[in-house]
Amino acid sequence: MLERYGHGGDLESASELYGGDPASFLDFSANINPLGPPEGVMAKLGQALPSILRYPDPGHRRLKALLSRKLGVAPEHLSIGNGAAESMALLLLGLAPSRVGIVQPCFSEYRQLSEQFGAEVHAVFGSRERDWRAEVPDIAGLMKKVDLLFLGQPNNPNGVQYPLEEIRELAAEAERTRTYFVVDEAFIDFIPEGQRMTLLPELERFPRTILVRSMTKFYAIPGLRLGYAAAHPDVIRAMTGKQVTWSVNGLALLAGEFCLEGGEAHERETLELIAAERARLRAGLRGLGCRVSGGEANFLLAELPAPWSAGELQRELGLRGVLIRSCAMYPGLGPGHVRFAVKGADANARLLAVLGDVLAAGRNDLH
Amino acid sequence: MLERYGHGGDLESASELYGGDPASFLDFSANINPLGPPEGVMAKLGQALPSILRYPDPGHRRLKALLSRKLGVAPEHLSIGNGAAESMALLLLGLAPSRVGIVQPCFSEYRQLSEQFGAEVHAVFGSRERDWRAEVPDIAGLMKKVDLLFLGQPNNPNGVQYPLEEIRELAAEAERTRTYFVVDEAFIDFIPEGQRMTLLPELERFPRTILVRSMTKFYAIPGLRLGYAAAHPDVIRAMTGKQVTWSVNGLALLAGEFCLEGGEAHERETLELIAAERARLRAGLRGLGCRVSGGEANFLLAELPAPWSAGELQRELGLRGVLIRSCAMYPGLGPGHVRFAVKGADANARLLAVLGDVLAAGRNDLH
Repeated sequence: MLERYGHGGDLESASELYGGDPASFLDFSANINPLGPPEGVMAKLGQALPSILRYPDPGHRRLKALLSRKLGVAPEHLSIGNGAAESMALLLLGLAPSRVGIVQPCFSEYRQLSEQFGAEVHAVFGSRERDWRAEVPDIAGLMKKVDLLFLGQPNNPNGVQYPLEEIRELAAEAERTRTYFVVDEAFIDFIPEGQRMTLLPELERFPRTILVRSMTKFYAIPGLRLGYAAAHPDVIRAMTGKQVTWSVNGLALLAGEFCLEGGEAHERETLELIAAERARLRAGLRGLGCRVSGGEANFLLAELPAPWSAGELQRELGLRGVLIRSCAMYPGLGPGHVRFAVKGADANARLLAVLGDVLAAGRNDLH
Repeated sequence: MLERYGHGGDLESASELYGGDPASFLDFSANINPLGPPEGVMAKLGQALPSILRYPDPGHRRLKALLSRKLGVAPEHLSIGNGAAESMALLLLGLAPSRVGIVQPCFSEYRQLSEQFGAEVHAVFGSRERDWRAEVPDIAGLMKKVDLLFLGQPNNPNGVQYPLEEIRELAAEAERTRTYFVVDEAFIDFIPEGQRMTLLPELERFPRTILVRSMTKFYAIPGLRLGYAAAHPDVIRAMTGKQVTWSVNGLALLAGEFCLEGGEAHERETLELIAAERARLRAGLRGLGCRVSGGEANFLLAELPAPWSAGELQRELGLRGVLIRSCAMYPGLGPGHVRFAVKGADANARLLAVLGDVLAAGRNDLH
């Protein structure tokens, strides 16, 4: 199975399964900004390469100062992580919840990490009618039973946001039930600022709400690992108290600094590209008979026309050098669910062409 | 204090304390190979920079295969870490010892990480007569009381090894007392192969012995973070069961692969340089009135001539652009203990010159 390590973007496994060089695949299975990092960042990293001969700053001081300015949040409300995944792990280690709540379908690491660190996981489910969002009373009910709850905003793999009033209601409920409310905003940067449903500006009111963000997706540096959390200083201290010294490497810190220092044009271009290409990809997928969710992020959840299964299609595309994410293993979804990253115009066109060929050929003529 | 994050090599804090650009210091406080990485590695990393746009291999497959061949240990006996510090953290999380034993003076992370993850720490002490090694019966006695014991080989900050028969005796004792025996070999690569006192070739006989190694010191890539552990597959599984997906970044994996693929000349030159320069530095320090331990690694523990304290000297040298590691905070050592990395001939000569000036000026004439 392509997702043998639980995630998309595993080019080594793709190479083992389908042959070819790992770097040769057109990868729609990982949701990375198709524009790459902001202009000049790669050149600056090249010049900064000799810095790997020195230890990283264990206090992440420069990056934290830059983030603080960009987000309007004091440094003591911020914790830098070796990817958003480490920030989630530090929350689980630092807050030590016995029971964790999740809203399925969702990012598999919520359950994986929770169980890894000894928590019992309880779930509620989203419905097709709400584009795989769950009902707020169901989530609030789950909060009563758990010590910590994860929610994706926008959620992975369906790409939809909860409206701000619903998120705010849940954050207030988290205070009442004394539940930590972890809002995973790993993909929120791909949504235009006015449309982002985030509690960042009102975080002071909700000391049990934690926002986790990724810098590897929007800035296209997943190989370097970089994420952060914004939360009450008590939560931040609990996290850093479990962090291994130097867990964030020096080039990731520098890359984060470079990206934050000059990324305005990159931000605007990314948002325009994603909005336009997502609409085009959605229309194309619908034209090929897929049922597509109404996501706002840089990926789309689709259900294949019967009788195709996600695994079958993944293999056919993989053999043609195109990787997609099967979502058949997401509890709450069915065997025909797949996720496509939104990439640039040429890549998306190629995906639609290959997909059209495969679907037209039919299942019997294939490998 | 320069060691506000508990370690040497903190150039940001040095810059805050003494002024000047962080990269401008001559840093004897971190024990990094003065030759840098093997020839060609930096150029290859420069070419491989675009790989940061892809996720790292979560299975670390290529690096594990190369390490397996170099060490003569099957891949299922190996776990790759985000620095040796992560490997230690994963041992503590995976094996969950209630009580941890340490042999002081030693690397501060043994206690720090153990307490961080909820273990109670018990200690025995080395003695000046044994160059700060402890007596084997004392360590064996400690093993009876703890679930896991850390031992540095060679030990930091004194740089000495325990003889192989003593290490073997301790490993056998660990089997009898059902104690995990974590041998931290982070600096063992700096010792010529014939003189390395390691249980690596006999690991099969000691399923409770774990060897932890670093690739950031010998290969001079501390900014990228890379380490590994060699142990019984059950221990390896316990470790990887607690590891966050992608915790080892993609450039670190590539750097490790490049270093292992062509480092024979680099290895020979490093060993020659360190042996020669360590002898020269030791003689020079003794000439300046320091009492120097008999370490075999790429650093030297020294006791300053009275009445100098480590903190005073550190500040004087810091203001002159030279960083040293105060060891005054190591339990078991005194206020006049400092550690010097062994660097290249020019750097060592400059250290001795600046040190000579400061010591000659006397404490009253200084800042």
